Amino acid sequence: MKTIVVCSGGLDSVSLAHRVADEGGLIGLISFDYGQRHRKELDYARTCAKRLGVFHDVIDMRAVGSKLTGSALTDDVAVPDGHYAEETMRVTVVPNRNAIMLSVAFGVAPARQADAVAIAVHGGDHFIYPDCRPDFIAAFQAMQDRALDGYASVRLLAPYVNGSKAEIVTDGALHGTPFAETWSCYKGGDLHCGRCGTCVERREAFHLAGVDDPTAYEDPEFWKAATEGFKAEEVR
Amino acid sequence: MKTIVVCSGGLDSVSLAHRVADEGGLIGLISFDYGQRHRKELDYARTCAKRLGVFHDVIDMRAVGSKLTGSALTDDVAVPDGHYAEETMRVTVVPNRNAIMLSVAFGVAPARQADAVAIAVHGGDHFIYPDCRPDFIAAFQAMQDRALDGYASVRLLAPYVNGSKAEIVTDGALHGTPFAETWSCYKGGDLHCGRCGTCVERREAFHLAGVDDPTAYEDPEFWKAATEGFKAEEVR
Repeated sequence: MKTIVVCSGGLDSVSLAHRVADEGGLIGLISFDYGQRHRKELDYARTCAKRLGVFHDVIDMRAVGSKLTGSALTDDVAVPDGHYAEETMRVTVVPNRNAIMLSVAFGVAPARQADAVAIAVHGGDHFIYPDCRPDFIAAFQAMQDRALDGYASVRLLAPYVNGSKAEIVTDGALHGTPFAETWSCYKGGDLHCGRCGTCVERREAFHLAGVDDPTAYEDPEFWKAATEGFKAEEVR
Repeated sequence: MKTIVVCSGGLDSVSLAHRVADEGGLIGLISFDYGQRHRKELDYARTCAKRLGVFHDVIDMRAVGSKLTGSALTDDVAVPDGHYAEETMRVTVVPNRNAIMLSVAFGVAPARQADAVAIAVHGGDHFIYPDCRPDFIAAFQAMQDRALDGYASVRLLAPYVNGSKAEIVTDGALHGTPFAETWSCYKGGDLHCGRCGTCVERREAFHLAGVDDPTAYEDPEFWKAATEGFKAEEVR
Protein backbone atom coordinates (compact mmCIF):
# COMPACT_ATOMS: atom_id res chain seq x y z
CA MET A 1 0.00 0.00 0.00
CA LYS A 2 1.42 3.41 -0.98
CA THR A 3 1.32 5.27 2.31
CA ILE A 4 1.83 8.86 3.44
CA VAL A 5 2.68 9.15 7.15
CA VAL A 6 1.48 12.19 9.09
CA CYS A 7 4.76 13.06 10.77
CA SER A 8 5.28 15.73 13.42
CA GLY A 9 8.92 14.80 14.01
CA GLY A 10 8.00 13.31 17.38
CA LEU A 11 8.89 9.89 18.70
CA ASP A 12 5.57 8.28 17.73
CA SER A 13 5.29 9.44 14.14
CA VAL A 14 8.99 8.99 13.31
CA SER A 15 8.77 5.43 14.66
CA LEU A 16 5.69 4.89 12.50
CA ALA A 17 7.51 6.23 9.43
CA HIS A 18 10.36 3.76 10.02
CA ARG A 19 7.89 0.90 10.50
CA VAL A 20 6.00 1.69 7.28
CA ALA A 21 9.29 2.15 5.40
CA ASP A 22 10.50 -1.24 6.68
CA GLU A 23 7.26 -2.81 5.47
CA GLY A 24 7.92 -1.28 2.04
CA GLY A 25 4.90 1.02 1.80
CA LEU A 26 6.26 4.49 2.59
CA ILE A 27 6.07 7.07 -0.20
CA GLY A 28 6.22 10.31 1.79
CA LEU A 29 5.68 12.32 4.96
CA ILE A 30 3.28 15.19 5.56
CA SER A 31 3.82 17.71 8.36
CA PHE A 32 1.74 20.65 9.57
CA ASP A 33 2.99 24.00 10.72
CA TYR A 34 0.06 25.30 12.75
CA GLY A 35 2.10 27.79 14.74
CA GLN A 36 2.89 25.30 17.51
CA ARG A 37 5.56 26.60 19.87
CA HIS A 38 7.50 23.37 19.48
CA ARG A 39 7.98 23.94 15.73
CA LYS A 40 11.47 22.57 16.18
CA GLU A 41 9.94 19.12 15.70
CA LEU A 42 9.36 19.98 12.02
CA ASP A 43 13.14 19.88 11.48
CA TYR A 44 13.16 16.33 12.79
CA ALA A 45 10.39 15.38 10.36
CA ARG A 46 12.44 16.82 7.48
CA THR A 47 15.51 14.88 8.61
CA CYS A 48 13.40 11.72 8.80
CA ALA A 49 12.12 12.14 5.22
CA LYS A 50 15.68 12.64 3.97
CA ARG A 51 16.93 9.62 5.87
CA LEU A 52 14.17 7.43 4.41
CA GLY A 53 14.47 8.95 0.92
CA VAL A 54 10.85 10.07 0.49
CA PHE A 55 9.08 13.37 -0.21
CA HIS A 56 8.15 15.71 2.62
CA ASP A 57 5.12 17.99 2.28
CA VAL A 58 5.05 20.70 4.94
CA ILE A 59 1.66 22.39 4.99
CA ASP A 60 1.62 25.93 6.29
CA MET A 61 -1.52 26.10 8.41
CA ARG A 62 -0.48 29.05 10.56
CA ALA A 63 -3.46 31.07 9.30
CA VAL A 64 -5.70 28.29 10.57
CA GLY A 65 -3.77 27.81 13.83
CA SER A 66 -4.21 31.47 14.73
CA LYS A 67 -7.99 30.96 14.69
CA LEU A 68 -7.93 27.90 16.95
CA THR A 69 -7.54 29.67 20.25
CA GLY A 70 -7.24 28.33 23.74
CA SER A 71 -4.38 25.84 23.50
CA ALA A 72 -1.08 26.05 25.36
CA LEU A 73 0.58 24.68 22.21
CA THR A 74 -0.31 27.68 20.08
CA ASP A 75 -1.19 30.51 22.46
CA ASP A 76 0.47 32.50 25.19
CA VAL A 77 -0.67 30.00 27.82
CA ALA A 78 1.86 28.23 30.06
CA VAL A 79 2.63 24.61 29.16
CA PRO A 80 1.93 22.66 32.39
CA ASP A 81 4.39 20.28 34.07
CA GLY A 82 3.20 16.84 35.12
CA HIS A 83 1.88 13.58 33.78
CA TYR A 84 0.51 13.53 30.24
CA ALA A 85 -2.82 11.95 31.22
CA GLU A 86 -3.68 14.46 33.97
CA GLU A 87 -6.67 16.79 33.73
CA THR A 88 -4.29 19.78 33.68
CA MET A 89 -3.07 18.61 30.25
CA ARG A 90 -6.40 19.59 28.72
CA VAL A 91 -4.87 23.02 28.00
CA THR A 92 -2.60 21.31 25.43
CA VAL A 93 -5.61 20.31 23.29
CA VAL A 94 -5.77 22.09 19.93
CA PRO A 95 -9.48 21.76 19.09
CA ASN A 96 -10.10 19.53 16.08
CA ARG A 97 -6.42 19.31 15.20
CA ASN A 98 -6.44 15.71 13.99
CA ALA A 99 -9.63 16.13 11.96
CA ILE A 100 -8.10 19.15 10.21
CA MET A 101 -4.72 17.54 9.58
CA LEU A 102 -6.23 14.27 8.38
CA SER A 103 -8.69 15.90 5.99
CA VAL A 104 -5.84 17.85 4.39
CA ALA A 105 -3.79 14.63 4.19
CA PHE A 106 -6.76 12.90 2.54
CA GLY A 107 -6.92 15.74 0.01
CA VAL A 108 -3.20 15.45 -0.74
CA ALA A 109 -3.22 11.64 -0.96
CA PRO A 110 -5.00 11.35 -4.36
CA ALA A 111 -2.69 14.04 -5.82
CA ARG A 112 0.30 11.99 -4.61
CA GLN A 113 -1.21 8.71 -5.85
CA ALA A 114 -1.24 7.38 -2.29
CA ASP A 115 -3.84 4.87 -1.19
CA ALA A 116 -3.26 5.15 2.55
CA VAL A 117 -2.59 7.78 5.20
CA ALA A 118 -1.04 6.63 8.50
CA ILE A 119 -1.17 8.42 11.84
CA ALA A 120 0.59 7.52 15.10
CA VAL A 121 -2.19 8.11 17.64
CA HIS A 122 -1.89 5.71 20.58
CA GLY A 123 -3.72 4.48 23.68
CA GLY A 124 -1.98 6.92 26.02
CA ASP A 125 -3.59 9.79 24.10
CA HIS A 126 -7.13 8.63 24.80
CA PHE A 127 -7.67 10.25 28.20
CA ILE A 128 -7.19 13.81 27.03
CA TYR A 129 -7.49 13.85 23.23
CA PRO A 130 -10.84 12.62 21.84
CA ASP A 131 -9.48 12.82 18.29
CA CYS A 132 -6.97 10.06 19.05
CA ARG A 133 -9.50 7.40 20.04
CA PRO A 134 -10.48 4.31 18.02
CA ASP A 135 -14.06 5.54 17.52
CA PHE A 136 -12.77 8.78 16.03
CA ILE A 137 -10.49 6.87 13.66
CA ALA A 138 -13.39 4.67 12.49
CA ALA A 139 -15.74 7.65 12.08
CA PHE A 140 -13.11 9.57 10.16
CA GLN A 141 -12.66 6.68 7.70
CA ALA A 142 -16.43 6.44 7.25
CA MET A 143 -16.62 10.18 6.54
CA GLN A 144 -13.77 10.01 4.01
CA ASP A 145 -15.27 7.01 2.20
CA ARG A 146 -18.24 9.27 1.45
CA ALA A 147 -16.27 12.45 0.73
CA LEU A 148 -14.08 10.78 -1.92
CA ASP A 149 -16.69 8.35 -3.28
CA GLY A 150 -16.05 7.81 -6.98
CA TYR A 151 -12.78 9.78 -7.00
CA ALA A 152 -10.32 7.96 -4.75
CA SER A 153 -10.08 5.25 -2.15
CA VAL A 154 -7.76 6.09 0.72
CA ARG A 155 -7.38 4.01 3.89
CA LEU A 156 -6.62 5.50 7.28
CA LEU A 157 -4.02 3.41 9.14
CA ALA A 158 -3.52 3.82 12.88
CA PRO A 159 -1.55 0.75 13.92
CA TYR A 160 -0.75 2.10 17.40
CA VAL A 161 -4.29 3.24 18.25
CA ASN A 162 -4.79 0.54 20.87
CA GLY A 163 -1.17 0.32 22.01
CA SER A 164 0.80 2.21 24.64
CA LYS A 165 3.62 4.64 24.02
CA ALA A 166 5.98 2.04 25.53
CA GLU A 167 4.91 -0.35 22.76
CA ILE A 168 5.77 2.33 20.20
CA VAL A 169 9.27 2.56 21.69
CA THR A 170 9.60 -1.23 21.41
CA ASP A 171 8.31 -1.17 17.82
CA GLY A 172 10.47 1.82 16.92
CA ALA A 173 13.59 0.07 18.24
CA LEU A 174 12.67 -3.02 16.21
CA HIS A 175 12.60 -0.91 13.02
CA GLY A 176 15.83 0.94 13.76
CA THR A 177 14.34 4.34 14.65
CA PRO A 178 17.08 6.76 15.70
CA PHE A 179 15.23 8.09 18.78
CA ALA A 180 17.75 10.88 19.34
CA GLU A 181 16.51 12.29 16.03
CA THR A 182 12.98 12.84 17.33
CA TRP A 183 11.48 15.71 19.31
CA SER A 184 8.71 15.55 21.92
CA CYS A 185 8.97 18.54 24.29
CA TYR A 186 6.04 20.96 24.04
CA LYS A 187 8.23 23.84 25.22
CA GLY A 188 10.58 23.76 22.23
CA GLY A 189 13.77 24.79 24.10
CA ASP A 190 17.35 23.69 23.33
CA LEU A 191 16.98 20.47 25.29
CA HIS A 192 13.87 18.44 26.18
CA CYS A 193 12.65 20.05 29.44
CA GLY A 194 11.83 16.75 31.14
CA ARG A 195 8.90 18.31 33.02
CA CYS A 196 6.05 18.88 30.55
CA GLY A 197 3.46 16.18 29.90
CA THR A 198 5.02 14.86 26.74
CA CYS A 199 8.56 14.77 28.19
CA VAL A 200 7.33 12.81 31.23
CA GLU A 201 5.41 10.46 28.94
CA ARG A 202 8.48 9.97 26.70
CA ARG A 203 10.83 9.21 29.57
CA GLU A 204 8.31 6.83 31.15
CA ALA A 205 7.77 4.99 27.85
CA PHE A 206 11.49 4.23 27.43
CA HIS A 207 11.56 3.03 31.04
CA LEU A 208 8.55 0.72 30.59
CA ALA A 209 9.89 -0.61 27.27
CA GLY A 210 13.30 -1.29 28.81
CA VAL A 211 14.97 0.62 25.98
CA ASP A 212 17.82 3.09 26.56
CA ASP A 213 16.61 6.67 26.27
CA PRO A 214 19.21 8.69 24.34
CA THR A 215 17.44 11.99 25.11
CA ALA A 216 19.20 14.78 27.03
CA TYR A 217 16.67 16.29 29.46
CA GLU A 218 17.12 19.52 31.41
CA ASP A 219 15.46 17.84 34.38
CA PRO A 220 16.04 14.12 33.89
CA GLU A 221 14.55 12.97 37.20
CA PHE A 222 11.23 14.83 37.33
CA TRP A 223 9.33 12.12 35.45
CA LYS A 224 9.51 9.67 38.36
CA ALA A 225 7.75 11.97 40.80
CA ALA A 226 5.19 12.99 38.15
CA THR A 227 4.42 9.36 37.30
CA GLU A 228 4.12 8.31 40.93
CA GLY A 229 1.98 11.33 41.78
CA PHE A 230 -0.33 10.51 38.88
CA LYS A 231 -0.67 6.86 39.92
CA ALA A 232 -1.42 7.87 43.51
CA GLU A 233 -4.15 10.19 42.21
CA GLU A 234 -5.66 7.41 40.11
CA VAL A 235 -5.89 5.15 43.18
CA ARG A 236 -7.77 7.78 45.23
CA MET B 1 -28.40 28.53 17.89
CA LYS B 2 -25.24 30.62 17.40
CA THR B 3 -24.28 29.75 13.86
CA ILE B 4 -21.29 30.36 11.60
CA VAL B 5 -22.11 30.07 7.89
CA VAL B 6 -19.48 28.76 5.49
CA CYS B 7 -19.77 31.47 2.85
CA SER B 8 -18.02 31.53 -0.51
CA GLY B 9 -19.80 34.67 -1.69
CA GLY B 10 -21.86 32.58 -4.11
CA LEU B 11 -25.61 32.58 -4.54
CA ASP B 12 -26.21 29.54 -2.33
CA SER B 13 -24.15 30.50 0.70
CA VAL B 14 -25.14 34.18 0.67
CA SER B 15 -28.80 33.11 0.55
CA LEU B 16 -28.11 30.78 3.48
CA ALA B 17 -26.47 33.59 5.44
CA HIS B 18 -29.54 35.78 4.92
CA ARG B 19 -31.87 32.96 5.97
CA VAL B 20 -29.90 32.23 9.17
CA ALA B 21 -29.69 35.96 9.94
CA ASP B 22 -33.46 36.28 9.49
CA GLU B 23 -33.97 33.39 11.89
CA GLY B 24 -31.79 35.23 14.41
CA GLY B 25 -28.92 32.75 14.69
CA LEU B 26 -26.13 34.24 12.59
CA ILE B 27 -22.95 35.23 14.44
CA GLY B 28 -20.41 35.18 11.58
CA LEU B 29 -19.21 33.99 8.20
CA ILE B 30 -16.14 31.92 7.38
CA SER B 31 -14.57 31.90 3.91
CA PHE B 32 -11.68 29.97 2.45
CA ASP B 33 -9.05 31.24 0.07
CA TYR B 34 -7.71 28.04 -1.46
CA GLY B 35 -6.27 29.70 -4.55
CA GLN B 36 -9.49 29.28 -6.55
CA ARG B 37 -9.40 31.24 -9.79
CA HIS B 38 -12.76 32.79 -8.93
CA ARG B 39 -11.37 34.45 -5.78
CA LYS B 40 -13.50 37.42 -6.64
CA GLU B 41 -16.34 35.68 -4.81
CA LEU B 42 -14.50 36.35 -1.54
CA ASP B 43 -15.25 40.08 -1.94
CA TYR B 44 -18.94 39.24 -2.10
CA ALA B 45 -18.65 37.23 1.11
CA ARG B 46 -17.00 40.21 2.83
CA THR B 47 -19.75 42.53 1.61
CA CYS B 48 -22.36 40.06 2.90
CA ALA B 49 -20.79 39.97 6.39
CA LYS B 50 -20.74 43.79 6.52
CA ARG B 51 -24.34 43.99 5.35
CA LEU B 52 -25.46 41.54 8.04
CA GLY B 53 -23.22 43.08 10.73
CA VAL B 54 -21.30 39.93 11.67
CA PHE B 55 -17.64 38.90 11.77
CA HIS B 56 -15.93 37.45 8.70
CA ASP B 57 -13.06 35.01 9.10
CA VAL B 58 -11.15 34.49 5.85
CA ILE B 59 -8.87 31.49 6.16
CA ASP B 60 -5.83 31.53 3.91
CA MET B 61 -5.54 27.95 2.69
CA ARG B 62 -3.50 28.68 -0.43
CA ALA B 63 -0.66 26.52 0.88
CA VAL B 64 -3.14 23.64 1.09
CA GLY B 65 -4.80 24.43 -2.24
CA SER B 66 -1.48 24.22 -4.05
CA LYS B 67 -1.16 20.57 -2.92
CA LEU B 68 -4.63 19.56 -4.09
CA THR B 69 -3.86 19.18 -7.76
CA GLY B 70 -6.03 18.24 -10.63
CA SER B 71 -8.93 20.69 -10.40
CA ALA B 72 -9.88 23.27 -13.01
CA LEU B 73 -10.74 25.60 -10.11
CA THR B 74 -7.16 25.80 -8.82
CA ASP B 75 -4.92 24.61 -11.63
CA ASP B 76 -4.06 25.60 -15.16
CA VAL B 77 -6.83 23.43 -16.55
CA ALA B 78 -9.61 24.91 -18.71
CA VAL B 79 -12.99 25.43 -17.02
CA PRO B 80 -15.48 23.55 -19.21
CA ASP B 81 -18.67 25.06 -20.65
CA GLY B 82 -21.92 23.19 -20.29
CA HIS B 83 -24.40 21.91 -17.76
CA TYR B 84 -23.31 21.69 -14.13
CA ALA B 85 -24.33 18.05 -13.73
CA GLU B 86 -22.46 16.72 -16.77
CA GLU B 87 -19.59 14.27 -16.52
CA THR B 88 -17.25 16.91 -17.96
CA MET B 89 -17.76 18.95 -14.78
CA ARG B 90 -15.73 16.39 -12.82
CA VAL B 91 -12.63 18.49 -13.57
CA THR B 92 -14.08 21.17 -11.28
CA VAL B 93 -13.88 18.86 -8.25
CA VAL B 94 -11.31 19.96 -5.65
CA PRO B 95 -10.65 16.65 -3.85
CA ASN B 96 -11.87 16.68 -0.25
CA ARG B 97 -12.64 20.39 -0.29
CA ASN B 98 -15.73 20.27 1.92
CA ALA B 99 -14.16 17.91 4.46
CA ILE B 100 -11.19 20.28 4.77
CA MET B 101 -13.26 23.46 4.99
CA LEU B 102 -15.73 21.98 7.45
CA SER B 103 -13.07 20.57 9.78
CA VAL B 104 -11.43 23.98 9.95
CA ALA B 105 -14.85 25.57 10.60
CA PHE B 106 -15.46 23.04 13.37
CA GLY B 107 -12.10 24.02 14.91
CA VAL B 108 -12.95 27.72 14.73
CA ALA B 109 -16.50 27.27 16.10
CA PRO B 110 -15.55 26.58 19.76
CA ALA B 111 -13.13 29.54 19.71
CA ARG B 112 -15.99 31.74 18.47
CA GLN B 113 -18.48 30.26 20.98
CA ALA B 114 -20.61 28.99 18.09
CA ASP B 115 -22.72 25.88 18.50
CA ALA B 116 -23.50 25.35 14.82
CA VAL B 117 -21.84 25.52 11.41
CA ALA B 118 -24.06 25.84 8.34
CA ILE B 119 -23.18 24.94 4.75
CA ALA B 120 -25.21 25.52 1.58
CA VAL B 121 -24.72 22.20 -0.24
CA HIS B 122 -27.77 21.27 -2.31
CA GLY B 123 -29.32 18.47 -4.32
CA GLY B 124 -27.98 19.73 -7.64
CA ASP B 125 -24.45 19.14 -6.34
CA HIS B 126 -24.97 15.44 -5.74
CA PHE B 127 -24.16 14.14 -9.22
CA ILE B 128 -20.61 15.39 -9.33
CA TYR B 129 -19.59 16.25 -5.77
CA PRO B 130 -19.71 13.35 -3.28
CA ASP B 131 -18.91 15.73 -0.40
CA CYS B 132 -22.24 17.52 -0.92
CA ARG B 133 -24.47 14.47 -0.38
CA PRO B 134 -26.67 13.76 2.66
CA ASP B 135 -24.65 10.68 3.66
CA PHE B 136 -21.47 12.77 3.72
CA ILE B 137 -23.16 15.40 5.90
CA ALA B 138 -24.34 12.72 8.36
CA ALA B 139 -20.93 11.01 8.43
CA PHE B 140 -19.18 14.33 8.97
CA GLN B 141 -21.38 15.12 11.98
CA ALA B 142 -20.71 11.66 13.43
CA MET B 143 -16.96 12.18 13.00
CA GLN B 144 -17.07 15.61 14.66
CA ASP B 145 -19.12 14.34 17.60
CA ARG B 146 -16.21 12.05 18.35
CA ALA B 147 -13.42 14.53 17.57
CA LEU B 148 -14.78 17.19 19.97
CA ASP B 149 -16.19 14.83 22.59
CA GLY B 150 -15.93 16.47 26.02
CA TYR B 151 -14.75 19.81 24.62
CA ALA B 152 -17.52 21.22 22.48
CA SER B 153 -20.79 20.32 20.82
CA VAL B 154 -21.22 21.76 17.35
CA ARG B 155 -24.06 20.92 14.96
CA LEU B 156 -23.68 20.79 11.20
CA LEU B 157 -26.65 22.42 9.47
CA ALA B 158 -27.30 21.82 5.78
CA PRO B 159 -30.89 22.99 5.24
CA TYR B 160 -30.64 22.86 1.42
CA VAL B 161 -29.04 19.40 1.20
CA ASN B 162 -32.14 17.80 -0.29
CA GLY B 163 -33.38 20.84 -2.19
CA SER B 164 -32.66 22.16 -5.66
CA LYS B 165 -30.80 25.34 -6.53
CA ALA B 166 -34.13 26.78 -7.73
CA GLU B 167 -35.47 26.27 -4.21
CA ILE B 168 -32.47 28.23 -2.87
CA VAL B 169 -33.36 31.10 -5.18
CA THR B 170 -36.94 31.02 -3.87
CA ASP B 171 -35.71 30.88 -0.27
CA GLY B 172 -33.12 33.58 -0.86
CA ALA B 173 -35.75 35.90 -2.34
CA LEU B 174 -37.97 35.24 0.70
CA HIS B 175 -35.18 36.40 3.00
CA GLY B 176 -34.29 39.47 0.96
CA THR B 177 -30.99 38.23 -0.50
CA PRO B 178 -29.52 40.83 -2.90
CA PHE B 179 -28.65 38.33 -5.66
CA ALA B 180 -26.69 40.92 -7.65
CA GLU B 181 -24.26 40.90 -4.71
CA THR B 182 -23.33 37.24 -5.20
CA TRP B 183 -20.80 35.60 -7.49
CA SER B 184 -21.02 32.18 -9.14
CA CYS B 185 -18.85 32.10 -12.28
CA TYR B 186 -15.87 29.72 -12.05
CA LYS B 187 -13.92 31.82 -14.54
CA GLY B 188 -13.74 34.93 -12.35
CA GLY B 189 -13.87 37.50 -15.19
CA ASP B 190 -15.46 40.97 -15.06
CA LEU B 191 -18.93 39.62 -15.82
CA HIS B 192 -20.42 36.17 -15.23
CA CYS B 193 -19.46 34.23 -18.40
CA GLY B 194 -22.84 32.52 -18.78
CA ARG B 195 -21.21 29.38 -20.21
CA CYS B 196 -19.45 27.51 -17.40
CA GLY B 197 -21.31 24.90 -15.35
CA THR B 198 -22.10 27.14 -12.45
CA CYS B 199 -23.30 30.06 -14.66
CA VAL B 200 -25.64 27.72 -16.54
CA GLU B 201 -26.89 26.29 -13.25
CA ARG B 202 -27.43 29.80 -11.82
CA ARG B 203 -29.36 31.07 -14.81
CA GLU B 204 -31.47 27.90 -14.94
CA ALA B 205 -32.29 28.15 -11.21
CA PHE B 206 -33.68 31.70 -11.55
CA HIS B 207 -35.73 30.52 -14.51
CA LEU B 208 -37.17 27.52 -12.65
CA ALA B 209 -37.88 29.60 -9.54
CA GLY B 210 -39.61 32.26 -11.61
CA VAL B 211 -37.46 34.94 -10.00
CA ASP B 212 -35.86 37.77 -11.98
CA ASP B 213 -32.14 37.18 -12.49
CA PRO B 214 -30.30 40.49 -11.97
CA THR B 215 -27.00 39.01 -13.21
CA ALA B 216 -25.21 40.45 -16.25
CA TYR B 217 -23.87 37.54 -18.32
CA GLU B 218 -21.38 37.80 -21.18
CA ASP B 219 -23.37 35.11 -22.98
CA PRO B 220 -26.90 35.32 -21.57
CA GLU B 221 -28.48 32.76 -23.93
CA PHE B 222 -26.06 29.82 -23.77
CA TRP B 223 -27.77 28.25 -20.72
CA LYS B 224 -30.84 27.21 -22.74
CA ALA B 225 -28.92 25.11 -25.23
CA ALA B 226 -26.77 23.64 -22.46
CA THR B 227 -29.79 22.68 -20.37
CA GLU B 228 -31.64 21.18 -23.33
CA GLY B 229 -28.53 19.31 -24.47
CA PHE B 230 -28.10 17.88 -20.97
CA LYS B 231 -31.72 16.75 -20.74
CA ALA B 232 -31.48 15.09 -24.16
CA GLU B 233 -28.38 13.23 -22.97
CA GLU B 234 -30.16 12.03 -19.83
CA VAL B 235 -32.97 10.57 -21.93
CA ARG B 236 -30.59 8.59 -24.13
